[in-house]
Formats: sequence, structure tokens, C-alpha cells
Amino acid sequence: MSDSQPPDAPAAKPPHDSAATKRRLLLAATHEFTERGIAGARVDRIALAARSNKRLIYDYFVDKDGLFDAVMDAHIDLIVEAVPIDAADLPGYAGRLFTYSVEHPELVRLVTWARLEHRLGPASNASRSESYHRRLAAIEAAQLSGHVPTTFTPTQIVRLIESLAVGWTTATSAFLADAEAGPVQDPETYREVVAESVRRILT
Amino acid sequence: MSDSQPPDAPAAKPPHDSAATKRRLLLAATHEFTERGIAGARVDRIALAARSNKRLIYDYFVDKDGLFDAVMDAHIDLIVEAVPIDAADLPGYAGRLFTYSVEHPELVRLVTWARLEHRLGPASNASRSESYHRRLAAIEAAQLSGHVPTTFTPTQIVRLIESLAVGWTTATSAFLADAEAGPVQDPETYREVVAESVRRILT
Repeated sequence: MSDSQPPDAPAAKPPHDSAATKRRLLLAATHEFTERGIAGARVDRIALAARSNKRLIYDYFVDKDGLFDAVMDAHIDLIVEAVPIDAADLPGYAGRLFTYSVEHPELVRLVTWARLEHRLGPASNASRSESYHRRLAAIEAAQLSGHVPTTFTPTQIVRLIESLAVGWTTATSAFLADAEAGPVQDPETYREVVAESVRRILT
Repeated sequence: MSDSQPPDAPAAKPPHDSAATKRRLLLAATHEFTERGIAGARVDRIALAARSNKRLIYDYFVDKDGLFDAVMDAHIDLIVEAVPIDAADLPGYAGRLFTYSVEHPELVRLVTWARLEHRLGPASNASRSESYHRRLAAIEAAQLSGHVPTTFTPTQIVRLIESLAVGWTTATSAFLADAEAGPVQDPETYREVVAESVRRILT
């Protein structure tokens, strides 16, 4: 790996910087899983792209499924941090989720592969579950204080927001013969459509 | 194939009934593609399950992609027929789409594989595109006659309805750490949530 270090890299750096190697592996794995899914991904292709080797992948992540889970967790941590829930402005929150999903198509693809390949379920990681329950609690508190109507339960509201924010770029871009499907052409307009829809649902 | 015919089958039936063989191939292919997607599907497994052979698959459908397209078209024809658009009652239409997608998870999975594996696009079949434009025209007519508000364009309304009706069982059942994801637990309630959301969006 030292042959690929830039000339100004610290000379004292050990040749096997495990944090940097892990980062390169996760990056290469993101690319491979996003494009091919879990069954279609090849561990040796990931190792090659990361200028690493298969043994290290097994050392760090146990197996291909473990590597996939690590990639998913990393990307979910990113969106949870980038788009925190704002129960005082759920339409704006929905709009931001929409924009994030348009700008990060890899996240939506990873989650979708996981669903199709049965790699999602109650056994998912703890921080993911914690984030979900934090969002439910925020909505429940906003309902108690009267800022959000109680027509729908917190679970239903989370699902409605996610359907509108993410379904827009997934199910809908393909489902039922939308022959003009494809990348979202006018994200600014659609973001406002998503936000306005959530506003109306929660009036 | 004659060894598998029931005793009461018409004696005059030719041993190679191409319509029946095609039907068996499509059924076996639906199962294989639904579970494994396009890249993961094996033509010889489909032939075996259909008590047919690979040569006939190539004769009828050219290649694996052609077989997948035939499966998709068949399932889209089914939903288009089962859930016609009703522009006078778009909330009810959304609810029926939701129920259909819950009761026919294979359709949603097929469409999702197609999207992930880049097998959907403007080149999709003509009847699919025709159905899409018929739905847009129906909504436009309802807007002209004042039954549907013009806050959103027909395209946006189709996308909103599909997001809510189908996103509910796809994106949302997995996205963003819904640790309690899984099959829809209470379809009757959720159908009403979807319909009521569309009602509010179009008020």
C-alpha cells in the first residue's frame, strides 16, 4: 500500500493502517453492493478495488453478509445524522429526506437490495432501531403538545413520510408502467410536492 | 409431458400444447425471478420447474431478458385490469392499489428487481405506456371538470398515489431503520390510512 501513498504522507504511518484500509474496503464494497446486490457482489472484486485482499475482509467483517451489513450501517448512520427528525416541521423533514434520497441514490439501492435479498429484519443493528424509536417519540411528543394532529399514529406518520419521500424515487419511478420514469428531473419542484403533501396530510 | 396429464384430459390434445407450455414457463419464471432477480435466475431451473426444456424458452422468449420482460408484462397487465383508475374516486383507487400490492407481493418484487437491474426504461412495452397515459388523461379530465383540484399536475398525482400505495410496502418497510418492518400487519387499517392521505392531499 505504501506505493500509493501521496509523497506528503506522514513517514511514520504504518504500512497497514487498519482504519484507512477499512475505509477503502467500505468504499469499494458500497460501489459493488450498490450495483450488484449481495448475491451478485464478488468479494475478490471488492478487495482488488480497495487495493487490499480477501483475507482482510474476512478478518474485519467475517463474511460477505457482514461486509454488507457494515456498509448499510455506515450509510444509515450518515442519513440519520444528515437529516435529523424535526417534529415541529414534518413537511420540511419529508422534503429533506426526499432531497437526500435523490442526492444519495446508493442508499436507496442498498436498502432495496437488502429487502429483496431478505437481509433486513428485526435483527438489524441497535443504533438503527434506536433512531427509529427516537423519531416515533418525537412525533408522539409533538402530538401531545398539540403541534401535530392525532389523526394518524406516530408509526403511520413515519411510514407516510417515508413513502412520500423515498417512494417517489423508488416504487413510483418504475411501478405500473411509468414509461417516462428515470432520474427525478426537477428535484426542487418535487421536494415541494412532497412537503406540501405531508403538510396536507397533517392538517 | 403426457405422463403428467390428468386422466380426464382430452385425448386429442397434442403432446406439445404451446399455450399450456408457455403458461407453465411463465409461472415457473415468475417464481424464479421474484425470488432471485434477473442475474440470479437460472434458465435451466425454470425449465425444470416447468417440466419443459431450455430450448423451448429460447424459442418462445429469445433469452433470459426476454423471458423476464414477458413475466413483467403479464403481471402488469393483471394489475391494470384488476385495478382500473377511477378519477372520480382517487382515494379509493389508491386504497385498491395498496391492497393489490399487499396481496401480490410478487409484482412489487419483480418491478423492484427490474429497477435495480436496470431493466426498466422508456423502451418498456406499448400497453404499459398506453395504460400510464390513460391514467394521466383520466386525471386531467377530472381536473377540467372540477372534480380534482389542480394543485398538483396529473403526473404528480399519479406519483403521489403510487408512492403512498406501493411505497408503503417497499421503501418504508425497510428504509431508515424501521426495525419493526416486515409484512403489513393490519392491511385494512393501512388501506384506510393510504386512502385518507390521498383524500387530504387532493382536498
